[in-house]
Amino acid sequence: MPIRPFPPLDLTHGRVEMAHGAGGRAMAHLIQQVFVTALGGEALAAGDDFARVTVPPGRLVMSTDGHVVTPRVFPGGDIGSLAVHGTVNDVAMSGARVLHLTAGFIVEEGFPLAELVAIAESMGRAAREAGVGIVAGDTKVVERGGCDGVFITTAGVGVLTDDRLDIAGDLARPGDVLLLSGTVGDHGIAILSKREGLAFETPILSDSAALNGLVAAMVAAVPEIRVLRDPTRGGVAATLNEIADQSGVGMLVREAAVPVRPAVRGACELLGLDPLTVANEGKLIAICPPDRAEALLTVMQAHPLGRDAAIIGAVLADPDRVVQLETALGGRRVIDWLAGEQLPRIC
Amino acid sequence: MPIRPFPPLDLTHGRVEMAHGAGGRAMAHLIQQVFVTALGGEALAAGDDFARVTVPPGRLVMSTDGHVVTPRVFPGGDIGSLAVHGTVNDVAMSGARVLHLTAGFIVEEGFPLAELVAIAESMGRAAREAGVGIVAGDTKVVERGGCDGVFITTAGVGVLTDDRLDIAGDLARPGDVLLLSGTVGDHGIAILSKREGLAFETPILSDSAALNGLVAAMVAAVPEIRVLRDPTRGGVAATLNEIADQSGVGMLVREAAVPVRPAVRGACELLGLDPLTVANEGKLIAICPPDRAEALLTVMQAHPLGRDAAIIGAVLADPDRVVQLETALGGRRVIDWLAGEQLPRIC
Ligand SMILES: Nc1ncnc2c1ncn2[C@@H]1O[C@H](COP(=O)(O)OP(=O)(O)OP(=O)(O)O)[C@@H](O)[C@H]1O
Ligand SMILES: Nc1ncnc2c1ncn2[C@@H]1O[C@H](COP(=O)(O)OP(=O)(O)OP(=O)(O)O)[C@@H](O)[C@H]1O
Ligand SMILES: [Mg+2]
Ligand SMILES: [Mg+2]
Ligand SMILES: [Mg+2]
Ligand SMILES: [Mg+2]
Ligand SMILES: [Mg+2]
Ligand SMILES: [Mg+2]
Repeated sequence: MPIRPFPPLDLTHGRVEMAHGAGGRAMAHLIQQVFVTALGGEALAAGDDFARVTVPPGRLVMSTDGHVVTPRVFPGGDIGSLAVHGTVNDVAMSGARVLHLTAGFIVEEGFPLAELVAIAESMGRAAREAGVGIVAGDTKVVERGGCDGVFITTAGVGVLTDDRLDIAGDLARPGDVLLLSGTVGDHGIAILSKREGLAFETPILSDSAALNGLVAAMVAAVPEIRVLRDPTRGGVAATLNEIADQSGVGMLVREAAVPVRPAVRGACELLGLDPLTVANEGKLIAICPPDRAEALLTVMQAHPLGRDAAIIGAVLADPDRVVQLETALGGRRVIDWLAGEQLPRIC
Repeated sequence: MPIRPFPPLDLTHGRVEMAHGAGGRAMAHLIQQVFVTALGGEALAAGDDFARVTVPPGRLVMSTDGHVVTPRVFPGGDIGSLAVHGTVNDVAMSGARVLHLTAGFIVEEGFPLAELVAIAESMGRAAREAGVGIVAGDTKVVERGGCDGVFITTAGVGVLTDDRLDIAGDLARPGDVLLLSGTVGDHGIAILSKREGLAFETPILSDSAALNGLVAAMVAAVPEIRVLRDPTRGGVAATLNEIADQSGVGMLVREAAVPVRPAVRGACELLGLDPLTVANEGKLIAICPPDRAEALLTVMQAHPLGRDAAIIGAVLADPDRVVQLETALGGRRVIDWLAGEQLPRIC
């Protein structure tokens, strides 16, 4: 029961004001009525400067991602769910159990409270679905024009309880097998189609999803996995080149093996994009020793987020660290990093 | 040795481009040449999506703060050092040892690389001084006008290794003593004076500092501490009201006991501000049982960041949770939360 009552916020017509970021009573009420309500959890409700959380014994894993996506609501997700998936996935790429997130909001003066509530509710939902808690937050308000709507930076911690796991980008070895958990390009094309007002016969949804459940199944079955990475900005092309650089290896990808939705392929042709350079938000690349590849594929395909999983290629010995594509016609070309800028504010 | 070499960035005259946030080679080079270089550390250099960190056994503590301060460079600090101090301090307010930070950057297209380097170097320096590592980061670039320069959201983890510690905002009890670690209002007035171009006889420096060392000394000597909180946005007034609300108690503060620098007092009078509502970034409020207050004061005053520490008042039984000020003349007034907005983008 707070003393000196404060009028409840008008969550239908109200707007964010500078006072909501000033550290006084208005901010406390915004945090309570919008964020704590939507994001839930004991740690947030306690209202301390910090959250004390429980973590099982093991090696700790941390990651962070900022989110500035535009449009904020897109087919298959919004900035709130994306802000959860983005960081959950990066922590999960270590093989760790993802446990807790923090969320820092930067909001523009005048931002509609109703939209802020919708974003917070989407975040809360995504976190509950992923089985993670949002345990601490922060709210800054900048003047009109000081930022574009709302930016959300999440950070996450997880724990590696299985001592056998050693998953990192520099561990790919010649002979290893490349697996991809599903179709590529969905997120980027979903954003682009909404932005450009493109209409496709079948609407293209973002693949934005939390991959921690899929990863848990994968590492339980195949602890020998060497590398996991989510091909976000820069797409599969950037991700494979990063890993090739880190591990000092080359790669060969079979184009025909890379799953691409027909609608995404069509949109890419129309727009002159290579699906391999388009961002994903619910896919992963896995690299494992050859004798474990079939087992890994099976467990991936058994998971709803890995139904379309495929073996797409192999790691080669190559001091020049070139990532090559074997085209459908049998030719070879280099898969280079994305050059320049393709799609700003994709995440 | 990266293959396909990329021209080194022009860190003197160059500017941030959209490609620096696109996930391709340009981004990898920006991260390497600006951030990894300045922030250092094995975890960052590894270049994985996550950082695996070591943490001694104990209860884990997390927190986050976004930073949008303007001006970005102010007397006594800048947005980079502030982004380290802000989160280190919130984690430290649990009594925990602060261990690792993450840093998410949102940068405006066209931002000078030289300024970005200076900010990153300041962050790296502040982190080293505080004894914490920056272990993971993220870089998003928004188009010109999409944000105001650069925003930095840090998150931090710490660990409570001492089982005796139980420090939280709802643990203040009637009879407890209120301590303050030093002068109030320095940060807010430093920002304001820079912003308004005010010249004072003695320049007022922000107090921005990492308090984890001070806290470590305090909890080692007085593990009975009940509450710690850094009076940032909203100042001492907001912080005491928050704690009073959480703990269901009243408070009485002796005005004459609150340390305020003469220059800050003068500026506050000139500007019509109450020093108790002005933000600090290197001060803390501590609440402890009465029989431990002198011991706590002694250890605080022995630390460079607690030299001016003082006992400023006491916790009262009060179901209305009112925070009162006993003025120098012996009268009493209510110390209310900051109403409305005083100083936007103070941190
Ligand atoms: N957007 C948000 N979502 C969830 N929780 C939030 C949000 N903003 C703040 N909080 C929570 O509200 C409480 C107060 O946050 P606040 O940022 O005021 O504290 P602080 O970091 O100590 O102050 P400052 O940011 O001025 O340094 C904390 O428990 C924090 O986790
Ligand atoms: N500003 C920064 N400071 C320090 N390290 C950074 C910074 N930006 C990125 N990094 C580090 O660079 C590596 C790549 O970061 P990146 O954000 O590209 O990965 P990601 O999160 O997997 O991709 P995305 O953000 O597209 O989802 C990570 O190790 C990350 O910690
Ligand atoms: Mg990511
Ligand atoms: Mg990633
Ligand atoms: Mg905060
Ligand atoms: Mg803070
Ligand atoms: Mg605080
Ligand atoms: Mg990232």
